[in-house]
This record gives sequence, C-alpha cells and structure tokens, in this order.
Amino acid sequence: MSGKPGEEGAGTPREGTPRVARAWRPEGTRVRVGQVEIGGPGFVVMAGPCAVEGMEQTEQTAAAVASAGAHVLRGGVFKPRTSPYSFQGMGEPGLRVLAEAARKVGLPIVSEVMDAAQLPLMEDHVDILQVGARNMQNFALLRALGKLRKPVLLKRGMAATFQEWLLAAEYVLDGGNEQVILCERGIRTFETATRNTLDLAAVALAKQRTHLPVIVDPSHATGEPDLIQPMALAAAAAGADGLIIEVHPRPEQALCDGQQALTPERFAQLMRRLPGVLGAMDRHLWMPELPAHVVGAR
Amino acid sequence: MSGKPGEEGAGTPREGTPRVARAWRPEGTRVRVGQVEIGGPGFVVMAGPCAVEGMEQTEQTAAAVASAGAHVLRGGVFKPRTSPYSFQGMGEPGLRVLAEAARKVGLPIVSEVMDAAQLPLMEDHVDILQVGARNMQNFALLRALGKLRKPVLLKRGMAATFQEWLLAAEYVLDGGNEQVILCERGIRTFETATRNTLDLAAVALAKQRTHLPVIVDPSHATGEPDLIQPMALAAAAAGADGLIIEVHPRPEQALCDGQQALTPERFAQLMRRLPGVLGAMDRHLWMPELPAHVVGAR
Amino acid sequence: MSGKPGEEGAGTPREGTPRVARAWRPEGTRVRVGQVEIGGPGFVVMAGPCAVEGMEQTEQTAAAVASAGAHVLRGGVFKPRTSPYSFQGMGEPGLRVLAEAARKVGLPIVSEVMDAAQLPLMEDHVDILQVGARNMQNFALLRALGKLRKPVLLKRGMAATFQEWLLAAEYVLDGGNEQVILCERGIRTFETATRNTLDLAAVALAKQRTHLPVIVDPSHATGEPDLIQPMALAAAAAGADGLIIEVHPRPEQALCDGQQALTPERFAQLMRRLPGVLGAMDRHLWMPELPAHVVGAR
Amino acid sequence: MSGKPGEEGAGTPREGTPRVARAWRPEGTRVRVGQVEIGGPGFVVMAGPCAVEGMEQTEQTAAAVASAGAHVLRGGVFKPRTSPYSFQGMGEPGLRVLAEAARKVGLPIVSEVMDAAQLPLMEDHVDILQVGARNMQNFALLRALGKLRKPVLLKRGMAATFQEWLLAAEYVLDGGNEQVILCERGIRTFETATRNTLDLAAVALAKQRTHLPVIVDPSHATGEPDLIQPMALAAAAAGADGLIIEVHPRPEQALCDGQQALTPERFAQLMRRLPGVLGAMDRHLWMPELPAHVVGAR
Repeated sequence: MSGKPGEEGAGTPREGTPRVARAWRPEGTRVRVGQVEIGGPGFVVMAGPCAVEGMEQTEQTAAAVASAGAHVLRGGVFKPRTSPYSFQGMGEPGLRVLAEAARKVGLPIVSEVMDAAQLPLMEDHVDILQVGARNMQNFALLRALGKLRKPVLLKRGMAATFQEWLLAAEYVLDGGNEQVILCERGIRTFETATRNTLDLAAVALAKQRTHLPVIVDPSHATGEPDLIQPMALAAAAAGADGLIIEVHPRPEQALCDGQQALTPERFAQLMRRLPGVLGAMDRHLWMPELPAHVVGAR
Repeated sequence: MSGKPGEEGAGTPREGTPRVARAWRPEGTRVRVGQVEIGGPGFVVMAGPCAVEGMEQTEQTAAAVASAGAHVLRGGVFKPRTSPYSFQGMGEPGLRVLAEAARKVGLPIVSEVMDAAQLPLMEDHVDILQVGARNMQNFALLRALGKLRKPVLLKRGMAATFQEWLLAAEYVLDGGNEQVILCERGIRTFETATRNTLDLAAVALAKQRTHLPVIVDPSHATGEPDLIQPMALAAAAAGADGLIIEVHPRPEQALCDGQQALTPERFAQLMRRLPGVLGAMDRHLWMPELPAHVVGAR
Repeated sequence: MSGKPGEEGAGTPREGTPRVARAWRPEGTRVRVGQVEIGGPGFVVMAGPCAVEGMEQTEQTAAAVASAGAHVLRGGVFKPRTSPYSFQGMGEPGLRVLAEAARKVGLPIVSEVMDAAQLPLMEDHVDILQVGARNMQNFALLRALGKLRKPVLLKRGMAATFQEWLLAAEYVLDGGNEQVILCERGIRTFETATRNTLDLAAVALAKQRTHLPVIVDPSHATGEPDLIQPMALAAAAAGADGLIIEVHPRPEQALCDGQQALTPERFAQLMRRLPGVLGAMDRHLWMPELPAHVVGAR
Repeated sequence: MSGKPGEEGAGTPREGTPRVARAWRPEGTRVRVGQVEIGGPGFVVMAGPCAVEGMEQTEQTAAAVASAGAHVLRGGVFKPRTSPYSFQGMGEPGLRVLAEAARKVGLPIVSEVMDAAQLPLMEDHVDILQVGARNMQNFALLRALGKLRKPVLLKRGMAATFQEWLLAAEYVLDGGNEQVILCERGIRTFETATRNTLDLAAVALAKQRTHLPVIVDPSHATGEPDLIQPMALAAAAAGADGLIIEVHPRPEQALCDGQQALTPERFAQLMRRLPGVLGAMDRHLWMPELPAHVVGAR
C-alpha cells in the first residue's frame, strides 16, 4: 500500500492473509471454462468484436478467430460508453446472437456485465463474466459475483493501483467464488501516444504475489493495431497466462473501438507468432488434452 | 477530448450540444434542497462524518456543524471500501440514525448511493444522492438517477478527465433529471504528499463550460487536516459554489478516513474564515431569504 | 518520501534537518530584490512576455505591466523548447533589450538560466535567476547557483514530487545561497483539458513545511487565459506569496506560448481583483515602505 | 503531439520530416562501439554497477558481467541524486577505476554525463555517453553532444511524452551526431508497487517511427530484482535492441540503488534465458562476426 495521507489500508483479512495471496495456493489456480483451462501451462487467447453488432458480423468474426486458433469468443452486448449518445450495445438480443455464433464454432463466451441486475440474464448465456475497468470498484457487483460459481474476468481499473486491483479480486474470493482471472488492460498516465500505458510489470508481479491467472488486453492498452502484436508477445514473455483481443472483419465500420481492432488476417498472423515466444517460456497455446487411448498410442 | 488513439469521442448529443453545456442555461442552474439553494450567490457548506458510526457520534457531529453554520449534513451509511475487510458502513440502520440526527438540527442530508438497488431505500431519507468517485462511470446507476427528480451530487472519478466528468453528468441530465451538482475531489497523480491532487482549474473550467453548480471536497483531495482550510479558501476564490467537508468529534477514533477529518473546532474556524474570501468574490455564505415584511422593515 | 521500491531516501542532511525546513527559520525567509520583498506580507507579482522578441514588444509589455502594478519584469532570452526547430530565444542581445526595458520602468528582472555556463552573462543583467521546470534536477546548475548570492526562482519540475522539489532547493541552500523562491507551475497528469494540473495543495504544504517564499505560475499551469484569473485568486487564497504571469501585447503573434498570455487589459483586470482576496488573507499587494518622515506626517 | 492547450508543437524541422523519423533511414541506424553493434540483429546487453564505488567492486562486477556475456560495462561516476546529501559518485577518480576495470575484461564503457562541462574529461574514457532521465531536456547538454561524434544513450525522462523523447534525440541529430540510442526506463505514474511504470509500447512505437536503436532499463523501471528478468524478456519480445542492467556483487551494501541491483548469479541466469525469446524473434545475443577465413571453414 502507498503511504499517502488518508489512504485506506489493506484492512485485516479475516485469516490474516488475503485470499488472493499466492500462499493460499502456491501451485496456482486454474480456471476451467468448458474444456479450456486458464492458468495452467496452456496459454489461452480470447478474441472477438468489441461489440456484438449483428448476426453476420458476429458469426464472421467467430469463424475467423476460431479458425485462427482462439479459445474463447469475446463480444460485448452491454457497453459502458463515456457518452450517453454513443452506441450502448445490443443488450439481450445481442446475447442471443453471441451465444448462437459461439455455439456454431464451439467456443465458450466471455462478455461484460455492467450491473448486478444483469446477472440472471447473463448467467444463462455467458461462460466468463467480465467486469470492466470502470466497474473494478463497483463493490455491489463484485459482491454479487462472489456468490456465483462462474468464472469472473476482472479488468484492472484505469487508475487502480496494483494493491486495489488485488483487493477488488478479494471481494469476489471473499464471497466464495475463487474462479477469478485478472486482466491488465493499461493504466491511465500522462502519455498520449497510446490509449493507455500497458503495465506488464504488474502482470509479472501479480503472477508472483497471487495464485490467480493473469491475462493481458493489448487492444485497450494501446488503442493502436500496429502495437498489438509486439505487446501480445511481450505479455507472453512477461509470464501472462493469456490474451484478450479485439477482432473485427471491417474495423473501419465498427460501432465501437474500431480503430483498435485487428482484422482477421492480422489476428491469424499474431496466432502464428505466439508459439515461438511461448516455447521459450516452456509454454504453448492451450490445446485439449488428447484422450488416453490416443496418448497411449504415441 | 484528448486525441489519444482509441479514445471514444463525445458522441453526438441528440441536440448537437450536450445538455450540460452552459449554452443551455447561461444564467446557471440552481439546485434547491429544502430552503437551501446551490449554484446561486450563496455559498453552501455540507459537513459531517465520513461514516455514520452510531447515534451519539452522528448527533454530536450534526449539532457541531449546524451550530458552526453548515447548510447540509453529510454522512455515509454505504461505504465503498478498497478492502472487503474494512468497515462497510451501517447500512439501513445508519440511514435512520442519520435522518434522526439531521431532523434534530433541521439540516437536509447528502449521502452516497452505491448501487441502483439502494435507491428506493435512500430516496425516503436522503435529500441529495451522492455518486462516489469510484462510481462516476457506473452507467446503470447514472441512468437510474436520471429517472428521479432528486438532486444528485456527482463526484469526479479519480482518473476521470474533465470531459468524462461532464459526460457522466450528461447521463443523468439525458434521463430528465437536471438537478446535478458537480464535485471535484482531487485526481490521482504521481504525487504522494497529498492523498489526491486537487484540480481547482477544473472547477473554474466547469463553471465556464457548464450551467451546473460545482462544489469542492478538500477532505478527500488532500487527506490532511492542515491543508483543508487553505484549499477550502482557494476553492472559494476559484469560483466554487460550495464545499463538502468531513468532520468528526474524535478523528483519531473514526472508523473511516479519520486522519482527514476536521475536529468541530477546526471546522468552526474554517467557517469564520470563509466570509472574507467570499466577500471579495461578491458572494457570501448561503442564508435563508428574509420574509418580505422583514426586508421591508430594513 | 514515497515508499516505492528503489526510491532514493532524503539522505541525511548534515545537520539532521534539511536547510529548507521551516524549523530553521520559523518566521520565514524574505527574499529582497531591489526594494521589493518576497515572502513578507506584501504579495509580489512578476509579469512580462514568455520570450523577449524585440525592443518594441518588450518595452510595450514592460510599460503595461508596470503601470498595472507589477513588481518584477519577467522575460525569457534563453528558451528551453521541446523541439530544436522552435524559436530558442534571442540570447545575449535579448538580455540587453530586457535590461533596457526594465530600466525604463524601474522594475527588477527575472529571467531563466538554462546552463551554468550562462551565469556570468546573466548575473550582470538579471535580478532573479529562474531555474525552469525541465532543469529542476540539473544538479550542476543548482550547485553553481548555490555559490552565488543572488535570488533564485526554482520552478517545480513537471513530474517532481513535493519532496524532490524541496530537495532541489536544498542543493542551492546547501551551497550557501538562501535566497530561494519556490514556484509551483502545474504538474503533468492524465488531464488534457489544461496544459498542466495546478497543485495548490503543494503551495500550502510548502508554506507550512519550509521557510521559503512560494509563488505560483498560473500561465504555464493552465495554458488557458480564461483560467488565469481564477487560479491567480485561488493561489492568493491558498497562501502563495506571489505570482508570475505571462503578458503579451498581441498574444496571437507571440513567438512562444502566445495562447496562454494575457493581454495587458486582462492583466490589469487581474491586478484590480487581487487586493480583495489578499485583504481577506490579511495581506496586500507589495508596496514600497514610505520614508519615515512621510509616515510621521500621516 | 497532444492537443493540450498551451502545448508546444513539434515545430517545423528544417527538412519537413524530423531527422529521427524512420523515413530518413528505413533500414535502421546501427550504432557501433568498438566491435559491438547496436540496432542490428544482435541484441546487446550493458551491465554493471549503478555507481563505481572502488576498484575491487568495479573489477569484480566487470569480471562477472563479462563472463556472463555482457557486451558493454555500465557504471556511474557522476551520480544525479535527489538529495544533496546522498553519495554523488566518485567523479574523475572513478572514471579511471571504471576504465581500468573495463580494459581488463575488454568491454566498452557506458557512463552518464551530467553537464556539458564534464564532456572533455568523459570523452577520453567513455565509449557511450549516457544522458540521464533528469537531463533529457537539458538542451545545452544535448546541443554539446550533437557536436561530438560519439554514441549517445538518451534515457527517456520520467514524465516525457513519446514525442518529447524523440524531439530530445532530434537535438542531438540536428547537431550532426546520428549515433543516438534511445533508452526506455519507465515513466512516472500513480502506481507505487514499482519504482516506475515500464512503457514497452513506447519501445515498439519507437522502433516503428524512428530509425534509432532502442534499449530498455528494467532496473530503474521496476526497482525490484524479481521483476527484472520478466521485464527483460518482455523487452526482447517487444522488439528492443538491448538492455542496460544494474549488477552489484553485494546489492545490500551498494552506495546507490542497491535494492534494484541483480547479483552476478541472477544476472547470469537472465543471460541464459534471453536466447530463447530472442530466437523466437529471429534475433540472438550479439556476437563478434567471425573472421572470413573461419566462416569459410564452416
């Protein structure tokens, strides 16, 4: 904790050590979504559009990212937008579009929940519930997620310290839900050449201090397609357990954050570059385990 | 808007000019709470404990701030805390304590709402609904507040740009509720000598660009009792319409943010210093208008 | 000091307490420049162009600020510019222009020194040697200034913590030169609505913790003429000992920072507004003491 | 450039395109120091103590980093310290110690120059002249370095935007010295868990926008030995051309920044981990080219 005047201390966790601390599970937590395992040796890539805009765009993107090797389909239906006049997402109908597109390609879904009231609806369709950066300290939402038994993707707030990020996760774990994935997506600094400043040291630190899986969102972190591949590779080298990446078939027509989306071609290129760096880290892109009789045959 | 890559634009407000823009009401909006008017020539001081801890502490503080001349009683019953193990507020029973203490001294109440689900309860007891810094972009909450016809105190987020702050207010105005008071409470910067960095230029800018009342919270901005009086006076000179200040009878025993609370004595001293600076700005501490026959007699 | 890993501690000043600490001179240091005294009850205003561009512009500005009541003429002849292709200042000939303009209106001069090698030249013409924000930790320059017996105006670095600012002053005091004036000019933050973020809490804190005079530069802090008057008044209310303000007869034609310069008319308006706030603080614009026989005659 | 009010534009470089722009040399600049080439396919590691403390410590460190495969010996003899009471470096005698230690192991030297007046002395002993973060906008120093024909290592300032960093390099190139190596060493943000925030996106961006070599200093960026290896690997994956790393035989006894120094053992471990990631990037640790007759023999 920083020693600034007036800063709230970490509080005394009931057991003396926060539940997120690595000491609680030195071997690390693995979060399972369908077959996919996040936090193990397999590196997991989540990809898809910023916002679900319609059936064609969503199915096209889903097919593209699945064929390039993505493991989870991302897509927003409730969009937190700075302005009330920006596109706010398709809402419930979008959820059905997203679920249908995911089903066709056999991928699980990660999507953002903005309010506890949306949970009953989201729970039916979504495999990983994402808490966005703006809601990292929406404690009512965190408490509600703590009561579920569904994986939560907790994005770091734009101005959240490392300690505040871990304590936000603690709210979910304290409720009994240990399926939390941390996501670094860049912090707000004075720098204007990139949308945010990607803090990869926080990723390495989170891997050392907590037992939770940690993934990186290079799309929001940089806001710049040319920087996504280098930052994705750097994330892998820094020890991240995965990525979440925005892909759009026609970025220039996207209703949300199009300027930072990769085309399917560039996304596929990134997927081809990852195994090299992962191999150097004794890791690999996640793959389903082969059935026993196949393994036996090798 | 900043020109960072990937930054969302302001969107096109339906009428072409955001509803918060001064052009919509060049004379400025005045928010009324009981007799008190915020945004007119009278300068309004809200004061009270960070958190309602019990009847004795609350009544004692209410009596102290009322007798020193405060116009609104502040007090938190739902407390957003970084750690799940910190004191989270008294909840509903605290609301009744706060209402009773306020009734005895005849002051209206401002208190923080953390989630839309708390609104039905809060509405009965609270005169101004405060949105905390962490919830500035909790759009579900902002939308819900837009449907009410009750004053909203919108604190600037720790890392919110000026533009984002105004657009958060726009969510409430867009819903039809124009009773919004902006509150600057310090932004997060690299500086660690103070809890946050009070951005008084944003106060002056908000007065120029919007028609909304703007108040300042020097307690959270500095986290340091010795800096509250100078920053309160500076806020008055910068053109703020009021202050919100934490007061506790025994700061060292407070369950929340005690280190930044003023004692009743120091608060009274501040109230004695304000009229000088306000007078130089052609303003004064808010006072009820005298009935016509009294004015006539002067 | 912040507790960040790897952060350098304050070191052990030879006497155990840094020389800037108020404990060394509880009554406060007063810096004298000609007749003018900075750090006493009189509030001192320094004004003039960002850069000396030529005789006519400089004399015109000098006459305007002198007649509006400024106490010191500012003007840059060596300009630190982000780009090597921006106007870098007139250099030595500019110094002679500035000196001549100041002589005609009877004001002392403050001007920026960028390198120790410029000191012999500057010393002859300049009354207060300004260290710019970019040079706040140019320790070779600070050491050289410590050996002089001439007032130094030390601007806070754009990203300097409060503690680093005081320790930069300590370099000058440690050399034996105690004539140091601190100047807050805004820090660099994520906010883009203003050029920098004016940190008035640091001004109040510097007055409490050190014995040095502290002035404020609202021109660089805001970069916006409409914000200069409110921030100047706020600085006075926060306890500053003076201001340094950019004035240009034709801001739109200025070779440097024209967009933030006040016209002579707006500067005169500000000078008329200051006495009210200063009076509320038991202070006044600095005035020469009347000779004894005149005082006796009153 | 950011669009903040009052922000200086990039200026119009004399030829219309800044000299640092990649368009000037699309194949990239390679800086040569003795045999070593920085900016080509070979990845270059500079290592050594923060400060030269004496012959034994320096020789011991030089031997350790050389045997682990470092290509350049770093060591400070003029140390910019926040406090005037901290160890300020050995000065000229330290330079001779450093030169002697480097000679024995056959490595070139990089060392920081704090002031133009030190250049004649430094030039005789030092192969790469380092400009520290605090001096990034010491324009007198940059101009003086522009007149030399010796490699310059330009660290990014703690609060320097990407654009300001490039324009600081432009000062050196504009003087005719094109042997400039950019060095990212972390920027100052609100985060306190690390000493600074390493901005690897700026590294990738600098490689795309300029023709200059770019290296990374993970020691100052993190201030934390456990984070140096992950950040060094991440830098390699992000496209950096090299590293500069602090190594001390007994970190806990170091006179400067000991808490962030690697032991020789940990440094050797890092050197063993680098080739894997570099190989995935089609790069390798720099090695001298074999003489033609040896190559012919393969």
